[in-house]
Amino acid sequence: MAYDNDNIFAKILRGEVPCHKVFEDDRTFAFLDVMPRSHGHTLVIPKAQATGFTDIDDQDLAYLMKSVQSLAPLVVEGVGAEGFMLQQFNGLAAGQTVFHLHIHIVPRWADQALKAHGKEMEDQDVLAANAEKIRTVVSANLG
Amino acid sequence: MAYDNDNIFAKILRGEVPCHKVFEDDRTFAFLDVMPRSHGHTLVIPKAQATGFTDIDDQDLAYLMKSVQSLAPLVVEGVGAEGFMLQQFNGLAAGQTVFHLHIHIVPRWADQALKAHGKEMEDQDVLAANAEKIRTVVSANLG
Repeated sequence: MAYDNDNIFAKILRGEVPCHKVFEDDRTFAFLDVMPRSHGHTLVIPKAQATGFTDIDDQDLAYLMKSVQSLAPLVVEGVGAEGFMLQQFNGLAAGQTVFHLHIHIVPRWADQALKAHGKEMEDQDVLAANAEKIRTVVSANLG
Repeated sequence: MAYDNDNIFAKILRGEVPCHKVFEDDRTFAFLDVMPRSHGHTLVIPKAQATGFTDIDDQDLAYLMKSVQSLAPLVVEGVGAEGFMLQQFNGLAAGQTVFHLHIHIVPRWADQALKAHGKEMEDQDVLAANAEKIRTVVSANLG
């Protein structure tokens, strides 16, 4: 599948669509999922144009996963979670809806079930508050 | 958390517990989940001792994710799936049950819902047949 420059994450990367950003460096960008499965649900994406997990080169893949590794505990700390799940979807049949590679960091609490994937839009004030909590921890550790 | 040398995946790596292996190289090992969410549900693990996603070093993390990237399309082809989901769980609160880092490759079909995570033991003959299909494709591509 060819990369579509007008997908929503490409627009977010170009600043054409707003988002609740929590981290950015030369190669990766992280922001809150607007239809979160839990509080603090974060998406980490490469700046490289990759539709899915199988079409990103070795260097960008390694860098992306290292970013996820660094960010996940900070997201967890930011929202006071007890653990986290990573998820990544490839293909329409697997539930992929945006064809720019993205890794989901989903904070977990033992006593809270996950919401369904990509079903319910979160309130913007809640997203803004969660993003601020995460940015505070990210700045203190990666700033 | 300290790494427990007696976890089930450590025993599988040492050959003390049988498994339906689909791939092995110097640093990674892949085998079928015995409680699959779909046909061909595969686990890819590092040989390095890591309890979860945050305690593996950069080189082993990059190698592991590259293995997942190589294997996922072969798993999909082996069982004739239409897409795949990656999943990884960190901590009891997130549903992690074995404390040796493992990446789930879950084949997906548009018309088939996923089974629950880690609930129902699959028939050994079904696992053996799926493993054989995947090994055939893996051998042809990575052998």
